[in-house]
Amino acid sequence: MTCFAPLQNDTFLRACLRQSTDYTPIWLMRQAGRFLPEYRAMRAKAGSFMSLASNVDYATEVTLQPVDRFALDAAIVFSDILTVPDAMGLGLSFAPGEGPRFAHPVQDEDAVARLTVPDMNKLRYVFEAITSIRKALQGRVPLIGFAGSPWTLACYMVEGASSSHYRLVKTMLYSRPDVMHTLLKINADAVALYLNSQIEAGAQAVMIFDSWGGVLADGAFQEFSLAYTRRVLSQLHPTFDGVRIPRLVFTKGGGLWLDDMKTLDCDVLGVDWTVNLTRARHCVGDSKALQGNLDPSVLFAPPAHIEKEAIRVLNAFGQPHTGSGLGATHIFNLGHGINEHTPHEHVATLVQVVHDHSRNMRQLNHVTV
Amino acid sequence: MTCFAPLQNDTFLRACLRQSTDYTPIWLMRQAGRFLPEYRAMRAKAGSFMSLASNVDYATEVTLQPVDRFALDAAIVFSDILTVPDAMGLGLSFAPGEGPRFAHPVQDEDAVARLTVPDMNKLRYVFEAITSIRKALQGRVPLIGFAGSPWTLACYMVEGASSSHYRLVKTMLYSRPDVMHTLLKINADAVALYLNSQIEAGAQAVMIFDSWGGVLADGAFQEFSLAYTRRVLSQLHPTFDGVRIPRLVFTKGGGLWLDDMKTLDCDVLGVDWTVNLTRARHCVGDSKALQGNLDPSVLFAPPAHIEKEAIRVLNAFGQPHTGSGLGATHIFNLGHGINEHTPHEHVATLVQVVHDHSRNMRQLNHVTV
Repeated sequence: MTCFAPLQNDTFLRACLRQSTDYTPIWLMRQAGRFLPEYRAMRAKAGSFMSLASNVDYATEVTLQPVDRFALDAAIVFSDILTVPDAMGLGLSFAPGEGPRFAHPVQDEDAVARLTVPDMNKLRYVFEAITSIRKALQGRVPLIGFAGSPWTLACYMVEGASSSHYRLVKTMLYSRPDVMHTLLKINADAVALYLNSQIEAGAQAVMIFDSWGGVLADGAFQEFSLAYTRRVLSQLHPTFDGVRIPRLVFTKGGGLWLDDMKTLDCDVLGVDWTVNLTRARHCVGDSKALQGNLDPSVLFAPPAHIEKEAIRVLNAFGQPHTGSGLGATHIFNLGHGINEHTPHEHVATLVQVVHDHSRNMRQLNHVTV
Repeated sequence: MTCFAPLQNDTFLRACLRQSTDYTPIWLMRQAGRFLPEYRAMRAKAGSFMSLASNVDYATEVTLQPVDRFALDAAIVFSDILTVPDAMGLGLSFAPGEGPRFAHPVQDEDAVARLTVPDMNKLRYVFEAITSIRKALQGRVPLIGFAGSPWTLACYMVEGASSSHYRLVKTMLYSRPDVMHTLLKINADAVALYLNSQIEAGAQAVMIFDSWGGVLADGAFQEFSLAYTRRVLSQLHPTFDGVRIPRLVFTKGGGLWLDDMKTLDCDVLGVDWTVNLTRARHCVGDSKALQGNLDPSVLFAPPAHIEKEAIRVLNAFGQPHTGSGLGATHIFNLGHGINEHTPHEHVATLVQVVHDHSRNMRQLNHVTV
């Protein structure tokens, strides 16, 4: 067992667990990414995305870049959701200027029958990166581990690449639901094992990205995505070394299903920018923390507009609870990954306004109470 | 004034106006399209998409093709939502294998200042097509006219083409909301004039496609999309020649905003497949008819699965009202346009099962009452 430095900023973890905080914590999906010049320099040095992600030193440096530059309240390991199907033998590559691609997509019953939960040794580079990052962070902020949801992985595994209509994966879903269920079970068990190994390596919270749950029809979402996210959650370490490991679930385009999602055994639900945070809080009550949900495109606008929109998001959630027990908490984030064209100085504005305004909100509360 | 043959099948129009019908009417968004071999033959003959859409005889033939092949309850004029910005002088073209493209996108304040509501003479080919189609239909089914919503048109006008992140249009929205409002006002007035001209030419119902409303954040949707759809609706002919002209509004990805949309002065709200029709009906009550919402991908599955999923959609809406007054009605459709790879014989299955099952549902009601 590795010993890590004690945590100096637990705001994010407290908010995940619905404990009160002095201000609303913020981190950004895809914060270690192309909008940062120092990331682009590292990426050029590494050559390809995968040589960047699979090199422990590079992954460590890239994960810390946004934390060094901005007063973010969490770090997230630099990796990709497709490492799991890659370890299953599907042959992941990132062609320049295109998205990810699998050399061996899973497109029929036979291919699904050949799939198995991969040997976690093949993903050791991820776990080693997590341990290395934890050390490098020296307890400044907590480290989030992550994985794709079983359904989201299935989309890429069947389509073989990004897709605009999901024709192949939905054809399998509607024509051979039995085959799809087999595939999703394997994915769920692989994802659970993968996240547990991340926790053992040092991840202090884990997030499941259901990036493509929102393309499913009502009914199909519950059967083919939510049920398998639930299967992952049921296998996760609830604690590690006696410490609670918060679980976050984000379904892009899943705002209509919050009522279903609030029954998940997780701590935080992420929502995208189409969701009204006032209504979402009303829906989940005190049962879950909420994470989100600024439109990433707001960051293209000048600072005064960013300030206005960030405050609008904070106010839509409203006053977080300030007492000693558990209550409604908010983790500020974008409603999706930060865009590569974002001016990085705008992120500094955003972090500042979220911290300042959310401190003010709480003080206002103390005055009125 | 042109005289048209009397209407033989008013099921669609009755359902739009929340009057009872013997069965649930069905038509499909993009039903005149590439999934039909006879369409592909016409398209090859015409050369380009625009030479097909702008030729009255071709547009008439293509509009009737799906109605000739399937027992659909409505026809929709073969055209494109981008005819309006094209008439504004933006220079529309469809490059082979790509989407639409504008030679002169509207990307700054000066470009917006130069925009005006176009002379409807430039769109005469659409109105002539509508009159020609009405004649050719000989009253078999009603004819729907349509336009893009002001926001959806703005997306294409600013981006200059299809977009995955809407960076340019959202940058304008968040940085220069005043400029965006000017653009949207012009679009709304142009769309209203365009739809009224379609009504005068013979359209028996009109539909506004807010295809990209769902990419907006909560708050921005209400301000930049819904408000301008409302502005269009406020200018439309409520009747023509003494006959009510039903209005349909469809926001793809707008399921979260049904509560806002039900305040629109329209008759029908279209919903995509992420929406639970039972909940949607509960939300809109008797105030609006609902249109939708089968996932178009269901049509890739074998007939038995199509039957099951279509029945699931009909049952989710539930028993339509059967009395003599106004009540809850359902128009069956896909949740988005039909995919070009759809086997056309599967559409015949769908139409049959919707007609049969929805007749049975009503008979069951008579027995239980």
